[in-house]
Amino acid sequence: MGLSKKPVNGMKDILPREMEIRDYVTGIIKDTYRSFGFTPIDTPAMENIANLTNKQGGENEKLIFKVLKRGEKLNLETAKDASDVVDYGMRYDLTVPLSRFYANHENELPSPFKALQIGSVWRADRPQRGRYRQFTQCDIDILGEPTNLAEIELILATTTTLGKLGFKGFEIRINERRILKAMAAYAGFSEDKWDTVFIILDKMDKIGLEGVRQELIDDGNTEGSVDKYISIFTKLEGIKDTSKALEVLSEELDDFLEDEVRENLDQISAAVESAKSADFELVFDATLVRGMGYYTGTIFEIAIPEFGGSCGGGGRYDHMIGNFSGKDVPACGFSIGFERIILLLLEQDFRPDVSVKKVAYLVEKGYTPERLSKIMEKAAKARTENESVLVVRMNKNKKHQKELLSQQGYDEFIEFYNDQEV
Amino acid sequence: MGLSKKPVNGMKDILPREMEIRDYVTGIIKDTYRSFGFTPIDTPAMENIANLTNKQGGENEKLIFKVLKRGEKLNLETAKDASDVVDYGMRYDLTVPLSRFYANHENELPSPFKALQIGSVWRADRPQRGRYRQFTQCDIDILGEPTNLAEIELILATTTTLGKLGFKGFEIRINERRILKAMAAYAGFSEDKWDTVFIILDKMDKIGLEGVRQELIDDGNTEGSVDKYISIFTKLEGIKDTSKALEVLSEELDDFLEDEVRENLDQISAAVESAKSADFELVFDATLVRGMGYYTGTIFEIAIPEFGGSCGGGGRYDHMIGNFSGKDVPACGFSIGFERIILLLLEQDFRPDVSVKKVAYLVEKGYTPERLSKIMEKAAKARTENESVLVVRMNKNKKHQKELLSQQGYDEFIEFYNDQEV
Repeated sequence: MGLSKKPVNGMKDILPREMEIRDYVTGIIKDTYRSFGFTPIDTPAMENIANLTNKQGGENEKLIFKVLKRGEKLNLETAKDASDVVDYGMRYDLTVPLSRFYANHENELPSPFKALQIGSVWRADRPQRGRYRQFTQCDIDILGEPTNLAEIELILATTTTLGKLGFKGFEIRINERRILKAMAAYAGFSEDKWDTVFIILDKMDKIGLEGVRQELIDDGNTEGSVDKYISIFTKLEGIKDTSKALEVLSEELDDFLEDEVRENLDQISAAVESAKSADFELVFDATLVRGMGYYTGTIFEIAIPEFGGSCGGGGRYDHMIGNFSGKDVPACGFSIGFERIILLLLEQDFRPDVSVKKVAYLVEKGYTPERLSKIMEKAAKARTENESVLVVRMNKNKKHQKELLSQQGYDEFIEFYNDQEV
Repeated sequence: MGLSKKPVNGMKDILPREMEIRDYVTGIIKDTYRSFGFTPIDTPAMENIANLTNKQGGENEKLIFKVLKRGEKLNLETAKDASDVVDYGMRYDLTVPLSRFYANHENELPSPFKALQIGSVWRADRPQRGRYRQFTQCDIDILGEPTNLAEIELILATTTTLGKLGFKGFEIRINERRILKAMAAYAGFSEDKWDTVFIILDKMDKIGLEGVRQELIDDGNTEGSVDKYISIFTKLEGIKDTSKALEVLSEELDDFLEDEVRENLDQISAAVESAKSADFELVFDATLVRGMGYYTGTIFEIAIPEFGGSCGGGGRYDHMIGNFSGKDVPACGFSIGFERIILLLLEQDFRPDVSVKKVAYLVEKGYTPERLSKIMEKAAKARTENESVLVVRMNKNKKHQKELLSQQGYDEFIEFYNDQEV
């Protein structure tokens, strides 16, 4: 019978060294977010398949692991396509389940509701190095808060967490869907072209201003519009200060941009600057797009120098919960790049700073039951004194055994020989 | 478009109150097991379907959620049955994945390897009150340890954890597959009948000695054998002391029972008694069977008075890893009834003892950006001093708002009015 030792394709086993880092990072995240008043929730790994294929998930909807119907409901003979034989799917993110959760439990939850979720999601992506088909997402969301108090708290909580994990000198890039739209309107692009324009703009960091210009032209936009559009980004180039950038933008776009949008970002920037505890900059970035179609207002992204790309992001999505409950609820979320953080800490050979003393008891073989009882008693006592104690039989090659135990973090060894008192 | 607010049938959303208890229990479990030298690991939620349908999982194999093949591999037209259209399945326990994991990584792991796993498993059982189709299992296992050092450490670690969670006056029931077999052989049942005999014996707590007797007769066993079998349990009745019970059993079974089996249990009992830190009894129970076919030696079960039935169990399974690697490895595990513990704590309205002060800042609406910045600064400072601070806008009905916040554990309120200094 061909049993396989390997995990399923594209998913991975997690060994103790990595798992200890994951536990450590999870602990910091939970403690920090809790200090901001976020409360933990959880949702099932599976959702009804209709909830996952409602165009909210964008490209992720193509990557769903689908669950076969069971029992009498499964009728393979008459099935025409996959949708006939599946009823559930594995969640591909935590935002769709959260929105369903909130619609389902709104009456039992405080308002605003500050949710923390850490959990696995599954995507049947082409497996590649460092990218897995099951991975952990870590989201905080504030539901029911229409003002920028949500954005401010989300950015402060996320950056404080990153600071506690040892990251510094990073950036939080911020933009607004309404600014993206105002810029496109100002340039004179027709509204049905906007989504394509944003997709092209999103490539700015890869293809540069000239590349974006060319692709916009190739896409059939008039040279006049394209040049007007490009001129906005030229004017903003090199301006690092958020308030200054917004001033320039506001002057340029004039009536296309509501004052409220600018004031909103200015307030977020000021509050974050004065209350931040980590070493980072909040930077306005007119080229920030974020893929998901469900964002309705502010969008933000984490850029850490050690990483090439983004290490998490989020934004406001005021209409998603309405899809489930029929009633829109203001919502804003921030997702931290859990797997990228773990990867970086692993590469840095990071060791969680555990204050617990790790002691290994090496017990010579041939012990009597009475000796063993005494040794176990001694171990029990040490454990109550906050020591981590491993009781193992002494190997013939004691030196090698100790070396291996040292690699596991044991730095004290007590040897129990049968001719000595315990 | 019909989106559903409900979780999928038989699975549940977890609200903050329960999630906080789950996080608390998980923390105690991890800390305690770590102090015994167990190290955390994780495996994917899915396994190759062949690994799950190898008769190792007993009845659970009928309850597998199966995952549809994707892309070109899915060929519905030619599919004859479910096995043609699925490649993966959701894990129904943590023991099969652990065995695969160990076979896959043996060279990278210490020996003996002490593993701790906490994770979701899925079973497409008929949904019923308090029983869900996704639930958390929490297992510790010692792999590569042939002696009863494994059993002793597993029982001490599990009971210490239960003690730290506040349980007392409970029992750990212990038995041995080899004793079960010796008793059946002594009675004269033919070997092909043993499995059925054990299934009937397992009902002892429900149908009593007379009920077991009747079912054994109904099953076609001779009255002589049945009476001989029943007489063993009559002789053991009322004997609480493990050592005494083993003595009686050993006298009765004589050559059918190897001395080593009795000595092994005696040693476990003595070491556990002298080193235990929780308030419990280790009790030999000749009627303990445990369903899974993979057990090869000791078996044990937790009985907590507050519960009707068992609250976890385990045993030795020395042949399972060999199914994956072709080479048997001694293995012994103990699973703690995580979901039952959570249920009990919820029913007792348990509140985790968190040392963090929870403060709510109620901010009057109409604040200036400068005021908000100052308030956020004040909150940031309090959070560095280990307070959990919630910043919310003050509602018109402040009294009601405070009541709701009290229910969430906030016991201090600071009000920020626009006409007062921050």
